[in-house]
Amino acid sequence: MNGARSLLATMGANGVTTVFANPGTSEMHFVAALDDVADVRAVLCLFEGVATGAADGYARVTGRAAATLLHLGPGLANGWANLHNARRARVPLLNVIGDHATYHARYDAPLQSDIAAVAGTLDGPVFNPRRPDDVATEAARAIAGAYGPPARVATLILPADVSWGEVPTPPAEWPVAMPTRAPAPDDDLLELAATRLRTTRSAVFLGGTATTQALMGLAQRIGAASGAKVMVETFPTAMDRGAGVFQPERLIYLSEFAVAQLADLETLVLIGTNEPVGFFAYPDVPSRLVGEDCHVVALAPPGTDAEAALAALVGLLDAPVVAPARGDAPEAPSGALTAQSLAAAIAATMPDGAVLSDESNTSGIHLYGATAFAAPHRLLTLTGGSIGFGLPVAVGAAIGSGSRVIALESDGSMMYTMQALWTMAREGLDVTVVALSNRRYAILDFERQRVGATGAGDASERLLALDQPTLDLCGVARALGVPATMVTTADELVSALRRSYATDGPSFIEVPLPAAF
Amino acid sequence: MNGARSLLATMGANGVTTVFANPGTSEMHFVAALDDVADVRAVLCLFEGVATGAADGYARVTGRAAATLLHLGPGLANGWANLHNARRARVPLLNVIGDHATYHARYDAPLQSDIAAVAGTLDGPVFNPRRPDDVATEAARAIAGAYGPPARVATLILPADVSWGEVPTPPAEWPVAMPTRAPAPDDDLLELAATRLRTTRSAVFLGGTATTQALMGLAQRIGAASGAKVMVETFPTAMDRGAGVFQPERLIYLSEFAVAQLADLETLVLIGTNEPVGFFAYPDVPSRLVGEDCHVVALAPPGTDAEAALAALVGLLDAPVVAPARGDAPEAPSGALTAQSLAAAIAATMPDGAVLSDESNTSGIHLYGATAFAAPHRLLTLTGGSIGFGLPVAVGAAIGSGSRVIALESDGSMMYTMQALWTMAREGLDVTVVALSNRRYAILDFERQRVGATGAGDASERLLALDQPTLDLCGVARALGVPATMVTTADELVSALRRSYATDGPSFIEVPLPAAF
Repeated sequence: MNGARSLLATMGANGVTTVFANPGTSEMHFVAALDDVADVRAVLCLFEGVATGAADGYARVTGRAAATLLHLGPGLANGWANLHNARRARVPLLNVIGDHATYHARYDAPLQSDIAAVAGTLDGPVFNPRRPDDVATEAARAIAGAYGPPARVATLILPADVSWGEVPTPPAEWPVAMPTRAPAPDDDLLELAATRLRTTRSAVFLGGTATTQALMGLAQRIGAASGAKVMVETFPTAMDRGAGVFQPERLIYLSEFAVAQLADLETLVLIGTNEPVGFFAYPDVPSRLVGEDCHVVALAPPGTDAEAALAALVGLLDAPVVAPARGDAPEAPSGALTAQSLAAAIAATMPDGAVLSDESNTSGIHLYGATAFAAPHRLLTLTGGSIGFGLPVAVGAAIGSGSRVIALESDGSMMYTMQALWTMAREGLDVTVVALSNRRYAILDFERQRVGATGAGDASERLLALDQPTLDLCGVARALGVPATMVTTADELVSALRRSYATDGPSFIEVPLPAAF
Repeated sequence: MNGARSLLATMGANGVTTVFANPGTSEMHFVAALDDVADVRAVLCLFEGVATGAADGYARVTGRAAATLLHLGPGLANGWANLHNARRARVPLLNVIGDHATYHARYDAPLQSDIAAVAGTLDGPVFNPRRPDDVATEAARAIAGAYGPPARVATLILPADVSWGEVPTPPAEWPVAMPTRAPAPDDDLLELAATRLRTTRSAVFLGGTATTQALMGLAQRIGAASGAKVMVETFPTAMDRGAGVFQPERLIYLSEFAVAQLADLETLVLIGTNEPVGFFAYPDVPSRLVGEDCHVVALAPPGTDAEAALAALVGLLDAPVVAPARGDAPEAPSGALTAQSLAAAIAATMPDGAVLSDESNTSGIHLYGATAFAAPHRLLTLTGGSIGFGLPVAVGAAIGSGSRVIALESDGSMMYTMQALWTMAREGLDVTVVALSNRRYAILDFERQRVGATGAGDASERLLALDQPTLDLCGVARALGVPATMVTTADELVSALRRSYATDGPSFIEVPLPAAF
């Protein structure tokens, strides 16, 4: 047995049974070992950003770590952007990177680079076993590091000779990462939070692992009993939504409006996340969004027990059960394709239990409101702001959940990681891609006004427009193996969505839309 | 005048007049300033790896630095793989990365990451001006750092507030980076090299900046006068080739054969590059390729004056001028498409002065031999081993040279950076893409045997095959705006190549080939 096989066996023993892979020469023993370890499934991705985004999506819907398999520094770098999103999503992820043989590193061969330094910027632990004997132990440590809490992107750098070298005495049992209990909330902070929720203008601010139906239900009770608002971060990792699910008020993306939204608060109680800040800085807009006098109570930071904190507040406030608000999903729309009719079409047709991977950017502005009373579903969003997350995350979410995934994708964003479409086709994944095409980086039209860069000459205009030539999104999808159709009315969109939900495997629907701003 | 505009003015004053851009919010003032600085041309790329590879290609054919424009950590990471190739190509490159406003960084907003740490792994200097006043000076330093010698990837991190902030007193003249002279070779080493070239079994080993016609011609004279072999590194940055150009013997990629190729040498004199080592490590194959008794004379390491070293050796050896070998380009081939007929078709039809961006991998095995007496051209190769370089480098080479570029691209490799096709279409670049389709990661079939990972079960097979579904390469090209055709015989390939050379703008030719191994 070699090091690679001991890694796969350890992964299997720890329930890391899916690996999203884009291998090269230094990973060939890992690839060969897949033939011998039946309980680990490998999924080929044609670009590393697909593999890392898929591992993120898998973790968001299962709560469990998937692995990546990447090829040295370039493979890690190509996967970094979606690892950044996974880091901000605070999901567990085992990032496996093949490296040169230990004794080859000193020769500075063409592919040599400082992998550990790049991986270190992902803010999770980095492991680098130097002998085949150490692989299983280090892998178990890496998996433990991935689960945390807080959950992290843990990296295992596997040199080629450590991968192909013999493990002289494989252990009788593979090491298993022991789960670590998330710390309970501090009693004094709980008292403080309960008192201030009762006595001041307050909000409970949810994020991270606190956006499940169960935890949001606890928060709703706290809000009803105390008079506090219940809010949710702008970009939740995986949020339960739809009919029967309590819906907190979402923090607005635009700092200017978020400041107003939070302006009258005297207390903000954080559960599962940190204090919200501006996504970008803008001239004359503060980076902190709460007022200077707002008392921020970091009751349950990431990696602590958010459920225990909410349950304790429910107890302290003696908060009774409350029924969720009722409402109806929109009717299926008719007529022109607009941001409104798009949102209504998604909301009206969404299958029960679907997963919505949302990279709709400006085109999706009406989506959150429209889907509040749609069929129960989970919403996955752009946690780290790194564009190109939507299709890869959909790949992993489909494999992890087995449910229908709807991937709302913008034309500009799709171009970063369109290779995900091929993996959807190859694996027969039930993904409905809704590609929103306004042929611009429309969000930048808007952002450049917000930062005060208002010149609009030909040179700058040419950096925002995606026409000349027009991107044929359906053509891209078909070339990568996904059946595609362009719709021209809301009625056609509704039909295409329903048809796609009734069809196994991926479908691609292009929706031309005017720019929203 | 703001910081962004002072950056562009400084770039213009230093001849950095092309910027390959994929901007986001934090780069909007840079984008706006393009409207005011007419001598800098911005080229939009839909993925950062296209922008960085294009800047590499531009530098390879012009010797001058182009700039990138990337969006925070994710933009840098997406561009890192081709920056790694540029680093290994040792070309000058100004890597501009927008960042959060200086005062925003402490809030750990979603897109916050350690940009300097990631950029630091590229082995070039990193500059990070903190005040608008400092931008011009730091930019000039970065440009000086890019030119070296040795030439490097120099990074300038530009915070949003430094970009939008006012420069109170713009300088009367923009700072200009002073050229630094490359160090001349050491006299003792010159004497040693000359003596050993004359008296031992020797080779002159060329790379880096020493692969121009002029410098290779000097090396040829040294070889003829001393009896030494003249060799060239496996992956030259930009090598003059074709009829009338002296052709050194290329070091074989496969370590097993390279060891044999170098086995009888007692002396290896390095000009423009370092000692060659194995691309990867393989069990039972040494990482060093020269024999243990070979005396390696590092006469002109990267960043030193390779021309002076060669000229001095010519003088010491009193080496007369020699005529280059003569030969004929192959006839235009007919019949089946094979690796041989592909190579012959390229060689037979190549226009004078073309640039060949070669990412043909296994399918291009016969190319180097076949093109030895083709029309004079320049060969650009995969210096850093980071896949996905061929199409982006072709973009930059076309813009930098104004010549016809032939981009030989493999199906697996093309999938990493296919977005380059759109930029070719948009800019009307004279690029002929020859896409070699064997529907496998064929090099890995081969590499896994070399590393001794010979199992070939279903699970491992599925990570090497690119069928299921078949990639429609022509479909990808058309969807991104490039006219495409599939050829089925060598005759059709020859016609398609000739047609493409006679047509302005890009063309895409898919060539189905059996896997070479």
